[in-house]
Amino acid sequence: MRETTAYVAVASDRPLTRQTIERRDLRPNDVAIDVTFCGVCHSDLHEIHRPGNKPLVAGHEFVGVVTAIGPEVSRFRAGDPVAVGNIIDSCGTCSMCLAGQENYCEEFPTLTYGGTDRVDGTVTQGGFANEYVADEKFVYPLPDKLDPAGVAPLMCAGITVWEPLMRWNAGPGKTIGVVGLGGLGHLAVKFAHALGAHVVLFTTSEDKAAGAKSLGADEVVVSKDPIAMKATANRFDLIIDTASVPHDLTPYIRALALDGTLCALGALGSMQFDPMALLIGRKSLASAGSGGTTGTQAMLDFCNEHGITADVEVLPARDINEALDRLERNDVRFRFALDMKTI
Amino acid sequence: MRETTAYVAVASDRPLTRQTIERRDLRPNDVAIDVTFCGVCHSDLHEIHRPGNKPLVAGHEFVGVVTAIGPEVSRFRAGDPVAVGNIIDSCGTCSMCLAGQENYCEEFPTLTYGGTDRVDGTVTQGGFANEYVADEKFVYPLPDKLDPAGVAPLMCAGITVWEPLMRWNAGPGKTIGVVGLGGLGHLAVKFAHALGAHVVLFTTSEDKAAGAKSLGADEVVVSKDPIAMKATANRFDLIIDTASVPHDLTPYIRALALDGTLCALGALGSMQFDPMALLIGRKSLASAGSGGTTGTQAMLDFCNEHGITADVEVLPARDINEALDRLERNDVRFRFALDMKTI
Repeated sequence: MRETTAYVAVASDRPLTRQTIERRDLRPNDVAIDVTFCGVCHSDLHEIHRPGNKPLVAGHEFVGVVTAIGPEVSRFRAGDPVAVGNIIDSCGTCSMCLAGQENYCEEFPTLTYGGTDRVDGTVTQGGFANEYVADEKFVYPLPDKLDPAGVAPLMCAGITVWEPLMRWNAGPGKTIGVVGLGGLGHLAVKFAHALGAHVVLFTTSEDKAAGAKSLGADEVVVSKDPIAMKATANRFDLIIDTASVPHDLTPYIRALALDGTLCALGALGSMQFDPMALLIGRKSLASAGSGGTTGTQAMLDFCNEHGITADVEVLPARDINEALDRLERNDVRFRFALDMKTI
Repeated sequence: MRETTAYVAVASDRPLTRQTIERRDLRPNDVAIDVTFCGVCHSDLHEIHRPGNKPLVAGHEFVGVVTAIGPEVSRFRAGDPVAVGNIIDSCGTCSMCLAGQENYCEEFPTLTYGGTDRVDGTVTQGGFANEYVADEKFVYPLPDKLDPAGVAPLMCAGITVWEPLMRWNAGPGKTIGVVGLGGLGHLAVKFAHALGAHVVLFTTSEDKAAGAKSLGADEVVVSKDPIAMKATANRFDLIIDTASVPHDLTPYIRALALDGTLCALGALGSMQFDPMALLIGRKSLASAGSGGTTGTQAMLDFCNEHGITADVEVLPARDINEALDRLERNDVRFRFALDMKTI
């Protein structure tokens, strides 16, 4: 076994502690990655605070450098900069995997942490660590023109909004709404703008208007303003709802144009809406999560071409507990990236 | 004013009574129609039993013959056989009307009965009558190769399933599910089969299998059988759910393939489902209702070309209360059509 330093959640109500953990010896298709930056996602907070899954190393959107490869690795060499997201294996044979959508694998994909390794049955441990070991199939070349710290959140927040934008054809002539301007929302605005769509941010905070426009939003609608919301009726081809607080989806369904789609990514506990709002205008309510290998590579290529990264505040890894506290209080401008060299 | 004989609901708990009612004098674009057959729809039952809207003449899917025309009518002459559905006017200027989807008119379309006439403000009264008067824009030429009694239900049940089949591209290579084999469901099976799709009927009654296959279903799945239901996972491009009893939509969402859509037409009070079922496979839940002028004409042309009508049991109009009672007990094979010449 290999050893690495990691920040470990030992109990759901305790700060992460710095510990030495084991990584598996390299299998034929494995690469070992020296982790340089790891994003901090809301789902990290959720898993750390969830009872029953400890000890746990979170972190599922990271970049780093290959340090060693297994004998059958063909796509990477030691020294290659790479990126990893929240899925590191899948069955590879079901209809979803064959479609390049391993995120929807019928056997459920193996998650980067908290998953069950398909070979040895151990629990996977994530990227809040100095080293990660993964099958090369789920490792991506780091785009060469982009700041690595800002690439890390693309691997989860980015791909999660990229795939719905592709699925529902965001592009010139389309009007795309984005609800919420956090980690997912700010990337949805950047992507939709770069794709050529007309982009409207829905936010509860009027003071986010200037920031949203600098990211690429053409308009900002304050969702607490009933007159402004009513004026959005039947306008949108697609609305991507990233708000993580449970809320009534009906106003956003009403804002859709004929045959439009509301894709809810944030608040999945239960979906509250008036079914008649779906009927009038033949509208769709959808959801999506994460992304597959095909989409992830396409997103990274697009970002490299358009110079898109997440807006990140870089913190030293040793401040990880502060980062989690601040994320819980929503005291973050879009996304934290931890500098894992300061572990 | 003109006079006609109609079956009038005078109270929500009393049988319909035969009465003379008034029709408006013809406006410049109006046609007067001698009604020959009128279908009986579940929504007729609902409106007849609903308190507060009486007196009411129901009936919103009918065929007949033009007897008189206003001076500006251009599409019809006296003697022309025609058909009318559940919408007889709309604003004509909103985005939905301009798209030929008057059924989603932003001012709400004027319904064939129980609506408010946009010119004189009177309440519209439906097709359970000898004569109907309507603007020619919402009157359609009767397809020349089809049995008129079987055309009547196309005007509501038919268009309601036709539009989702068009919207979600039912055709060769697509696997389409239909839930329920009533008035809507049996037409959905016929249409999807004629469009070249692989058609699977979901039903609670195993004894409907033979009938469904004779209508064009390639397979029948008994939805009470958990093993059969589990085997449907990730198979369907589109499922049209016509079941009118509230039920959990989750098994049908799970049956959708990647990017598939469940279009719920029947039970719209509240939609019960597990949001995670939408997420896994990036699936959509949609609804739709009725149809616009463009779609209705396209459906009638398709039916004429493919020899498709609703399977109807024709009853004399004087038996209308028996028809309503039997419909309430589900004692009908697909659809009743009332022979309005026996009023």
